[in-house]
Amino acid sequence: MIARFQPFHYGHLNALKFCYERFGEVVVVVGMASQSHTPENPFTAGERVLMIRESLKWSGLPLDKLITVTLPTLEVSRVAVHYVKLYSPPFKHVVTLNPVIQRIFMEEGYTVVEPPRLARENYRGSIIRRLIAEGRSEWEQLVPPPVVDVIKSVDGVERIKMLYRERLPGYYATV
Amino acid sequence: MIARFQPFHYGHLNALKFCYERFGEVVVVVGMASQSHTPENPFTAGERVLMIRESLKWSGLPLDKLITVTLPTLEVSRVAVHYVKLYSPPFKHVVTLNPVIQRIFMEEGYTVVEPPRLARENYRGSIIRRLIAEGRSEWEQLVPPPVVDVIKSVDGVERIKMLYRERLPGYYATV
Amino acid sequence: MIARFQPFHYGHLNALKFCYERFGEVVVVVGMASQSHTPENPFTAGERVLMIRESLKWSGLPLDKLITVTLPTLEVSRVAVHYVKLYSPPFKHVVTLNPVIQRIFMEEGYTVVEPPRLARENYRGSIIRRLIAEGRSEWEQLVPPPVVDVIKSVDGVERIKMLYRERLPGYYATV
Amino acid sequence: MIARFQPFHYGHLNALKFCYERFGEVVVVVGMASQSHTPENPFTAGERVLMIRESLKWSGLPLDKLITVTLPTLEVSRVAVHYVKLYSPPFKHVVTLNPVIQRIFMEEGYTVVEPPRLARENYRGSIIRRLIAEGRSEWEQLVPPPVVDVIKSVDGVERIKMLYRERLPGYYATV
Amino acid sequence: MIARFQPFHYGHLNALKFCYERFGEVVVVVGMASQSHTPENPFTAGERVLMIRESLKWSGLPLDKLITVTLPTLEVSRVAVHYVKLYSPPFKHVVTLNPVIQRIFMEEGYTVVEPPRLARENYRGSIIRRLIAEGRSEWEQLVPPPVVDVIKSVDGVERIKMLYRERLPGYYATV
Amino acid sequence: MIARFQPFHYGHLNALKFCYERFGEVVVVVGMASQSHTPENPFTAGERVLMIRESLKWSGLPLDKLITVTLPTLEVSRVAVHYVKLYSPPFKHVVTLNPVIQRIFMEEGYTVVEPPRLARENYRGSIIRRLIAEGRSEWEQLVPPPVVDVIKSVDGVERIKMLYRERLPGYYATV
Repeated sequence: MIARFQPFHYGHLNALKFCYERFGEVVVVVGMASQSHTPENPFTAGERVLMIRESLKWSGLPLDKLITVTLPTLEVSRVAVHYVKLYSPPFKHVVTLNPVIQRIFMEEGYTVVEPPRLARENYRGSIIRRLIAEGRSEWEQLVPPPVVDVIKSVDGVERIKMLYRERLPGYYATV
Repeated sequence: MIARFQPFHYGHLNALKFCYERFGEVVVVVGMASQSHTPENPFTAGERVLMIRESLKWSGLPLDKLITVTLPTLEVSRVAVHYVKLYSPPFKHVVTLNPVIQRIFMEEGYTVVEPPRLARENYRGSIIRRLIAEGRSEWEQLVPPPVVDVIKSVDGVERIKMLYRERLPGYYATV
Repeated sequence: MIARFQPFHYGHLNALKFCYERFGEVVVVVGMASQSHTPENPFTAGERVLMIRESLKWSGLPLDKLITVTLPTLEVSRVAVHYVKLYSPPFKHVVTLNPVIQRIFMEEGYTVVEPPRLARENYRGSIIRRLIAEGRSEWEQLVPPPVVDVIKSVDGVERIKMLYRERLPGYYATV
Repeated sequence: MIARFQPFHYGHLNALKFCYERFGEVVVVVGMASQSHTPENPFTAGERVLMIRESLKWSGLPLDKLITVTLPTLEVSRVAVHYVKLYSPPFKHVVTLNPVIQRIFMEEGYTVVEPPRLARENYRGSIIRRLIAEGRSEWEQLVPPPVVDVIKSVDGVERIKMLYRERLPGYYATV
Repeated sequence: MIARFQPFHYGHLNALKFCYERFGEVVVVVGMASQSHTPENPFTAGERVLMIRESLKWSGLPLDKLITVTLPTLEVSRVAVHYVKLYSPPFKHVVTLNPVIQRIFMEEGYTVVEPPRLARENYRGSIIRRLIAEGRSEWEQLVPPPVVDVIKSVDGVERIKMLYRERLPGYYATV
Repeated sequence: MIARFQPFHYGHLNALKFCYERFGEVVVVVGMASQSHTPENPFTAGERVLMIRESLKWSGLPLDKLITVTLPTLEVSRVAVHYVKLYSPPFKHVVTLNPVIQRIFMEEGYTVVEPPRLARENYRGSIIRRLIAEGRSEWEQLVPPPVVDVIKSVDGVERIKMLYRERLPGYYATV
């Protein structure tokens, strides 16, 4: 399963449950791990791994079936598929909500599995970050409780508000 | 001659003909070769080299005068001129439709030759990609027939439509 | 003191004077030094170092207390703090007008000092570049006279006008 | 715990057991994850994660306390410490057998814990790779049985023999 | 066909002839194109492309079947195969004298063709560079006459002698 | 003046004096600034800038004529010349003790000035680092007294001894 988890939300958790029901082990690839403190990628990779693990504990899914892999920001090209293969133990199925990642894996011959969508209109990182930046507390309903805790423990609400007002100069992802 | 060729169109072909009439050999520099599957750079460098060569065959221009060079995405600075010099056999004239590339070569002491423009309003990569994304077939009139074939053979119409809806996360060019 | 200095303006000079009054030596970190000829970063690092030194001479501040450090473009993350520490002699206080840089240094345990703002509405690089691009001469009132000289000596007005019309393809900063 | 695990051997397993006895969760940082097929880094990060997990299963250590993080090759500097902090959930102690990694973490204020050494003369990746390259089967005694299986399943013996005869051109680590 | 061509020698020419007899078009991938002025990579990519083309002209092989692709230095890993695929038009067979490149392409499912070796003991770039560095003229017998001309025209003999005495500081390939 | 200054020694100081006598301002380019804690580059760029400035103070040379520029590690090629031009204010003469840097600047049309050598056999960074690693105090005679102080204040003797015994894994320079 591949995503950026900015932040980890109920859509991701639902997809993970879907994987747990079907597969013996699940590799979770945390993308753009080398970026943090930007509007699109406010949280560090370490904070995101923590969100994932704490949410699994909270939902009762066993951690011993979870394999976390952290992938740095890459220049976008079809080669990205092969970096995932380099960093990850062998895998048979690819699960992602992003249609372009679905497509490049299909172009490279993989079977892509799409999990049932959980009202994706709202369960999107971009919507959640926007709600946080605007000071609207609805975002807390879109992520598992441990994610609220992680975000608050790193003063993440204030961090995102600031990042939406002014950017740090340097290389950025555009997502 | 320097361009990104996303995709190769009649404006490029016209500039190449202009070069063929004046010079003994033509170095074609395919820029941002390390990027593909983005809205600004949907095609791989290899696909672009193929478009160029097949279009030359179709138009009757001899391939033995063509030298292809593939240049990875660079951080933008005046140093870019010198990467072109590193990758290319020696050259005397620089041909490009991009005014900023014209300028940095002039700042570094080169003679820049501007080919006669072929109604550049329409013969632009950005316009062609937009037409494809919107499902409008006029784009097929703006590129040589072999380019239509290459694009269709790699399912490029569907690829561009998808890239204009959703982006792959990672480093992007902004052009 | 950390900034991009695109270009060096009276807001920067005011902050430098503030530092000179308080500290024995001032390290000036020129950020995104590896980028030039983009709308956000039109001037080379060398041109920016020249602007800083010539402005200090003009304002009568002694150059022997100035330490210049040039930092390449970095992927944005909290690690950026530690690149500044790698490139710079040891420092005790951090001075910057950018609130996000202020924040990441505070998150890493530094004392951040904010200089008195000099009507920051106008003394901003983005406003000055925009005025230059639009051909409005008010920008010359927002920077010290030696900066006007440096910009004119490298034909910087024409360079910015061109960069605001068309971009050079490649990696960009988004600021 | 930080290492390259080329391959995972009994020295690593011993250090992991040491961590399991003392700490509630263990972050294992797989360094130089972006490199494979070189004499110093023959195995992919994915293969190394597999070795670690299969060895833990074999030795009866619970997988739910293990957090895997994959870190790309970095230019060597004191900044490396902060990339580990970026990629990893928060940690209190650093465990590594490499004295230079121990030192840079200490220079940055961390408590470094050294696990009891298990006759490090032999339990070293460089010695194991050398034995494999020379066709001497003693290496199979230096790694847990599941590592022998992983290496054989990817034809790793032949891979290493070839890499010790001739190198692939490109960037290399020197360790 | 993939090589670094430092410099282009009779072994390369022989392999190219072998390709010309079997295939309709030949893609020549010039590896480590971003490096020059090092003991292992003394010549620029542009100089190497020139050597290849001039040698083909000299030997009477038609240039219109040649497709040149220039590939920057990559970190070594199995992903390298996919960068070749990104930069090159589609290909069916891989021809290289380097056994490790042969191997990674086979691991990724390609058919690797090995051309008949032409006394490879002597026709090796490392031997030719060493002869030049030692001031021994035998190297001129190991490369086609146009390569001698290209090397002399860029003062390449003196360049290599100097590079073997002292290195330029920076990233290096180890081959 | 271009060097790595690992560490700054009397040969460098002598060359700087030579520059001060001839030129109004001196740009000192600290190369490989992004690397530290390696056998060839043990000191951070910041530590090296400090060594340079403190040595100038000690020798009575005025600091206001000194311009420091910090240049990250680059892949070696002729393009390196143009990164120096990007980072530095305009310069007329190039001063360096490294013959390969002398050569690439000459190939790019610069006037290279060689300062009188001060028994270069001993005043070399590699010899000084070796003496430190071997615990021989003669190194203290080869560098100005403030460099001894800087090295001791960062526990640099112990750092070098450790780096000569074991290396930190990651990208390295080879000089």
